[in-house]
Amino acid sequence: MSDTQSLPDVTQSMVDAQDLSGPGADHISAVFHRYAELFTAADAEGITQLYAADAIVRDPVTAPAVQGHAAIRAWYQGAFDAAGHMDMKVEGEVRIAGRHGAATFVVMAGADSAPFQSNTLDVMVFNDDGLITSMDAYWGPTNIHML
Amino acid sequence: MSDTQSLPDVTQSMVDAQDLSGPGADHISAVFHRYAELFTAADAEGITQLYAADAIVRDPVTAPAVQGHAAIRAWYQGAFDAAGHMDMKVEGEVRIAGRHGAATFVVMAGADSAPFQSNTLDVMVFNDDGLITSMDAYWGPTNIHML
Repeated sequence: MSDTQSLPDVTQSMVDAQDLSGPGADHISAVFHRYAELFTAADAEGITQLYAADAIVRDPVTAPAVQGHAAIRAWYQGAFDAAGHMDMKVEGEVRIAGRHGAATFVVMAGADSAPFQSNTLDVMVFNDDGLITSMDAYWGPTNIHML
Repeated sequence: MSDTQSLPDVTQSMVDAQDLSGPGADHISAVFHRYAELFTAADAEGITQLYAADAIVRDPVTAPAVQGHAAIRAWYQGAFDAAGHMDMKVEGEVRIAGRHGAATFVVMAGADSAPFQSNTLDVMVFNDDGLITSMDAYWGPTNIHML
């Protein structure tokens, strides 16, 4: 995708230093948006299928890793069961470096009892098949806001 | 900082699973904003002092690592010399998980010749002294926009 526009010299040289192999920026961006849609739909199985079979999820990044489709499916299902409806949206442009994607999200939740907003940020790495091999989520207490 | 407000149960349990050791969320957030100020001032030495002596910078994350104060200082100075004035701002809330911080930035540059906007995202890890031990930058060709 770097051929479609002329980059400033200073950024072109930094891009030239990158390993831009991977499934492509359009695919990575689409997966981030699809992830938010599936999360909003509480579709644990759909989200699981975005991941490679042996993928690792750390949500938050400081928590123990959850690995593999069965564990990942159970982890999301547990979160959906506990939280009730959550509305997740990608906040800005998905940042993409080769097979790495990262973006901020805003999650609105707790509408039935104690509404709150959670500001999160996910870093995902993709394999050549376009599947997520790892997802690290960055958020903590200072990113939860009661509404 | 998790004591200052009551979190929803679903997030409290995830926070409880975190390792929240580190220099504190207020410090981490402040460093992200200070980083943007120093970047805008093209202050390579000031930025270098935010890093631990043996810190690692990968900008972008797919590029070879730059390690240690001397190499980091030279790397930023090279970028500033090549790019001319760049205005960098934190885009949204800094996401903080224990000693990990992450945020999106918007950089406006090239005003003298070919103005462009670069949307970046940095993940920083901090030591107990509040210094950055690693910085990974996520951006690529699809995040550069000629204005």
